[in-house]
Amino acid sequence: MTFSLPSALHILRRTPATLDAILAGLPEEWSTVTEGPGTWSPVDVVGHLIHGEETDWIPRARIILESGEARPFTPFDRVAPRETSCDTTLAQLLVDFRALRARNLATLESWRLTPGDLARTGTHPEFGTVTLAQLLATWTVHDLGHIAQIVRTMAARYGTDVGPWRAYLRILGTG
Amino acid sequence: MTFSLPSALHILRRTPATLDAILAGLPEEWSTVTEGPGTWSPVDVVGHLIHGEETDWIPRARIILESGEARPFTPFDRVAPRETSCDTTLAQLLVDFRALRARNLATLESWRLTPGDLARTGTHPEFGTVTLAQLLATWTVHDLGHIAQIVRTMAARYGTDVGPWRAYLRILGTG
Repeated sequence: MTFSLPSALHILRRTPATLDAILAGLPEEWSTVTEGPGTWSPVDVVGHLIHGEETDWIPRARIILESGEARPFTPFDRVAPRETSCDTTLAQLLVDFRALRARNLATLESWRLTPGDLARTGTHPEFGTVTLAQLLATWTVHDLGHIAQIVRTMAARYGTDVGPWRAYLRILGTG
Repeated sequence: MTFSLPSALHILRRTPATLDAILAGLPEEWSTVTEGPGTWSPVDVVGHLIHGEETDWIPRARIILESGEARPFTPFDRVAPRETSCDTTLAQLLVDFRALRARNLATLESWRLTPGDLARTGTHPEFGTVTLAQLLATWTVHDLGHIAQIVRTMAARYGTDVGPWRAYLRILGTG
């Protein structure tokens, strides 16, 4: 296992600042662009990350610690955030995400998890038995994945403007 | 054409802060991880971005403005940065990139490019005729692509630690 809690925290703590650096103050031409019908804009992604802070990672970790495999996780609505984010400004979403992430990491650290705790198991509604370490590794990779999604979505805006260089630009799905 | 210079500058100006947010102070376990032999670590990517600031974007734009299609671009060594970055710390690379980007954007803005200028053409050694607008759009997408590469490379560290969630995590190349 490569995962360690201190190592994961290096990433989880940075995500609010990373989203601020990429998105804060960005005009709507960039922040609300999507990859096409049914896909998410950068703003939608921040809404989704907020939804995860509220209903996914720490609540599921708590279920593992309190109930083990006896109580399956509440299914996470992976499409929910889009309505939530419609009438909230990007600036407010970034502030909300930062506050929720800080609160959740404070909770996580307050548990003083041991290697034994990280090996504890819960029941995923689809996957069955999963460990707390897998949940926390997923939280970390999920952050990085959505950062990549945001910049990929933005890059696609110039997908034709780059002309023949498109062949070198893997982010446009052609390299 | 979606590209506009003010719009591209929103992205180009942000990249130093984005790289700082993702990488500054990160331990080597994250900053020097690669996707396997022959692939780049986050540190290598910053070295590559520095090389682009020094030899690619602004020098090529200058060739277009000064010589048009008459003088083909100097080929850009897309693999060069790896040696450069070996004996320089990540912190120093981030500082260097920030300074080079600031200087290059100051140069770009000093040219006060008109729509007519953006339509001016140069000769790419491989692609033939390209426009200044295509070059600048490519600079922008290139930034976003390498930000995505950095977070993808980091995410892969936990590729097996996430257990069955791997199926949901597109950044791991499986979703």
